[in-house]
Formats: sequence, structure tokens, C-alpha cells
Amino acid sequence: MTAVGKTIWAIPEGYIPSQSTSGDLAFLSHETVCMLNAGAGDANVSIAIFFADREPVGPYWLTVPPRCTKHLRFNDLTDPAPVPRDTDYTSLLESDRPVVVQHTRLASRKSKLVLLTTIAFGQN
Amino acid sequence: MTAVGKTIWAIPEGYIPSQSTSGDLAFLSHETVCMLNAGAGDANVSIAIFFADREPVGPYWLTVPPRCTKHLRFNDLTDPAPVPRDTDYTSLLESDRPVVVQHTRLASRKSKLVLLTTIAFGQN
Amino acid sequence: MTAVGKTIWAIPEGYIPSQSTSGDLAFLSHETVCMLNAGAGDANVSIAIFFADREPVGPYWLTVPPRCTKHLRFNDLTDPAPVPRDTDYTSLLESDRPVVVQHTRLASRKSKLVLLTTIAFGQN
Amino acid sequence: MTAVGKTIWAIPEGYIPSQSTSGDLAFLSHETVCMLNAGAGDANVSIAIFFADREPVGPYWLTVPPRCTKHLRFNDLTDPAPVPRDTDYTSLLESDRPVVVQHTRLASRKSKLVLLTTIAFGQN
Repeated sequence: MTAVGKTIWAIPEGYIPSQSTSGDLAFLSHETVCMLNAGAGDANVSIAIFFADREPVGPYWLTVPPRCTKHLRFNDLTDPAPVPRDTDYTSLLESDRPVVVQHTRLASRKSKLVLLTTIAFGQN
Repeated sequence: MTAVGKTIWAIPEGYIPSQSTSGDLAFLSHETVCMLNAGAGDANVSIAIFFADREPVGPYWLTVPPRCTKHLRFNDLTDPAPVPRDTDYTSLLESDRPVVVQHTRLASRKSKLVLLTTIAFGQN
Repeated sequence: MTAVGKTIWAIPEGYIPSQSTSGDLAFLSHETVCMLNAGAGDANVSIAIFFADREPVGPYWLTVPPRCTKHLRFNDLTDPAPVPRDTDYTSLLESDRPVVVQHTRLASRKSKLVLLTTIAFGQN
Repeated sequence: MTAVGKTIWAIPEGYIPSQSTSGDLAFLSHETVCMLNAGAGDANVSIAIFFADREPVGPYWLTVPPRCTKHLRFNDLTDPAPVPRDTDYTSLLESDRPVVVQHTRLASRKSKLVLLTTIAFGQN
């Protein structure tokens, strides 16, 4: 089977508001990255977080098992450091095997619920 | 005429909530894949659904007639198995002819209506 | 200067609801295609509209002047025929010069306002 | 390390409404372009704004520092001229080093909050 995807993915837009309308986890404001590893081996992915005015933080390491998807909330990243709230950031993912990456943000602020998505920018 | 599209398409983000605000079919939470077959022959498409922690399910088979579009709700897939609700998944489409694929999700939860879309990730 | 864009663009997702919450034109449900012609000559664009179960309709012709943008509402297309409401469709654009195409839909239904966008699928 | 991104980016859809529900800056209607410069040197970016019926305005100049992101609101551009409100426009970015560009619009109108995003169209 053909390898599906790319090994480098960028998501320029990133922002986790500290405010959230709901205490319900499903409706808590979050930034999510959804990854597909359609291949036969583990995909080892490192994530770096870039900021406007300081050095990048990372790498965060994660593994997407073969023939699996992983939906990861940036809110949940803690090692080496949590992603700061109310701060513009960008994420860059590098994988040792081809993957496909989609970015989704749910924002619940001021009793509003908004949801946005895009396939990330991929290259090899 | 040039063949339009690609033969492999991935949509990493997938999630069908079991809750829905409306009983009206048009406003029922759904995940849709919109496919264009601009060519002169049937496009035979197989879909596999990937999960976080188990083997993929599929293939689901469908045909997009020549010079036609098909808007398919993942909610409606039943063979070989319905797509589970409240579960993260990813879909991978493979077609025997070039097609173009766009992903749209409508979510109606807590009296909110949200709609998001992206062209899927395509390759040959 | 480098020519910017592609000559073939597809937007698989298309749907104009007949219901609209507002009588205000800015909030009327609409599907928009935004085109950039960054080049030095007119871009002559033909649009074909594809359906689930009948032959495509078109071509619709339009011109994007040099170094200009055009934001076109599918709602406004009339020649050779209006785009039917409450009907799934797909649009395919072909230009004699490179252009860049983005799709935006505003839906105002049931007092909700939703807005979605994606760069279309482009190829030469 | 591989250079990440492209040097030319287009965002066909652009529109800043003059109305805004909120006086709170975070909820003021805005168009944002998010740029990643993952490289080791400054990325010098020029932006041109295209209109439906007149010559483009620009260039607007900005610099994205090495290994940094910049989230820029089109609302904030002033030199050589502010971006007109209630007017369709398109933006074209050119960078002397590869960058990645994502477009986000927040619209707050009529007590509604909508948010949309897409990776821009990139090429070299």
C-alpha cells in the first residue's frame, strides 16, 4: 500500500483562551490536532511550539500506533511545559513516518460555541 | 479533458456526537463527505474508518456516477458496521478514478449550531 | 513576476438553503467563491455545477480583471440557469490564466449564523 | 533542517465588517493572518491588498523573526493605508524565506460570534 501523508506539518494558528463558558469537558475551549497514521509501524511525532517573541518550546513527543488515529488536545500537553493560555502560538509537527494532520479549535466564550477546522500545511 | 482530483483522500478529524438539539434531519449533527467525480466513468470509492485503539473498520463501498457529486453522511454508513457515536475517528478514502473530497461537519449541541469545512488531504 | 495560482479549481461542497433568518442582504444565506487574479491580463473563468443525479449545468462565464479580486455569490448566478436551492451541488472552475479560489458559506438559519471557509482544491 | 513552507501565499477571501457587537478587543471583528517562520533568519514579508475594481494597495512590510510566529490583524495595517471596511479584498503575501500562512476571521455581528479558518494557498 502507498504511504499516506507527509512527515512535516505546520499549524500557524494557535490560541487557547483561558475563559470557557462550560465546565463540561466536551465544551471546554480547546485546540486539537488530529493525526492519521495509515501505515504499518508506529509514527513517532515531535511537536514544537513557536511564539511571537521567545524561543520555541519542545519537543513534545507522542506516538501514533499503526493503522490508528490520535486526536490530541494542546490543552493536555505538559512535558516539557504546558502551552500558555491567552497567547498566540504556532505548532510544527515532525514525524518519522508519513501522517496526515488536521487542526480543529473549539471555542466556547460568552455563551457562544464556535468550531473551526483546516487540514494543516504538510510537506516532506 | 484533464482528470480532476486525486485517488487517495484522508480526513483525520471525525466525531459524531450522540446528542443533537434538533429532531429536524437537516439540523441533526452530522459529518459529511462531499465528493466530485468530474470524469466520464464511475468512481468506485472505498472508505476505511480508523480509531484510536482498535483495528480499522471497512471497507465501505460507494460509487460516484460520472460527472456527478455525492454528499455522503457518515451517520448513514451501516455496512459493514455503523460509525460509533461519541468516538474519535479518521476516514481514508481510496478511489479507482480521480475525485475531489471536502469534509463538512454540522454540530447542533446545547442550542448551538456550528458548521465547519475543509478540503480533505489528497494524494495519488 | 511569477504567475500565482492554478487553472482548475473544485469545491465539492455546495448547498444554498432556501430558508434564511434575515431579510438583510449581508446576512442572507449564501455560497461565495472568492477569486484572485494577480496577473496582468483578464482571467476568463467558466463554472460548471454538478449534481447528484443529473447532468451538470453550465458553463457560467465570468471575467476577473487583471490584478483584481472577484467575490461571487452562487445565489446570483442566473445564466444559463439559477442554482437550485436546497440541493447538493459541486462547482468546478476552469480559468484561462492562473487564479486562486477560496470558498465561503454563510448560513443563517433558525436565528443562528454560521460561516465556513476553505481554500478550494486547485490543480493545473 | 528542511526549510518549512512556501514563499508566496494568497488569501482570496477578505472582508472586515465595520459593525461589531463587542467593544472588547478580543471580540472585535477581525481578519488575522498567522505566519510561521521556522527558519534561522528573519523572514521579510510584503503584503499586497487586491480589490474588485481598483489597483492593489501595498506593499505593507513586516518581519517575522527567526523561529517565531506572528499573528497579524489586517485591521491593524495602516502603512501605506488602512484596509477599507465593508469592502471585498484579497491579500497576497510574498516572503524572502519560506513561511507557512493560515487565515482566520472572527466576526461578531448581531450578537453572533463566528470564527473561520483555512491554511492559505501557498506556492514558490
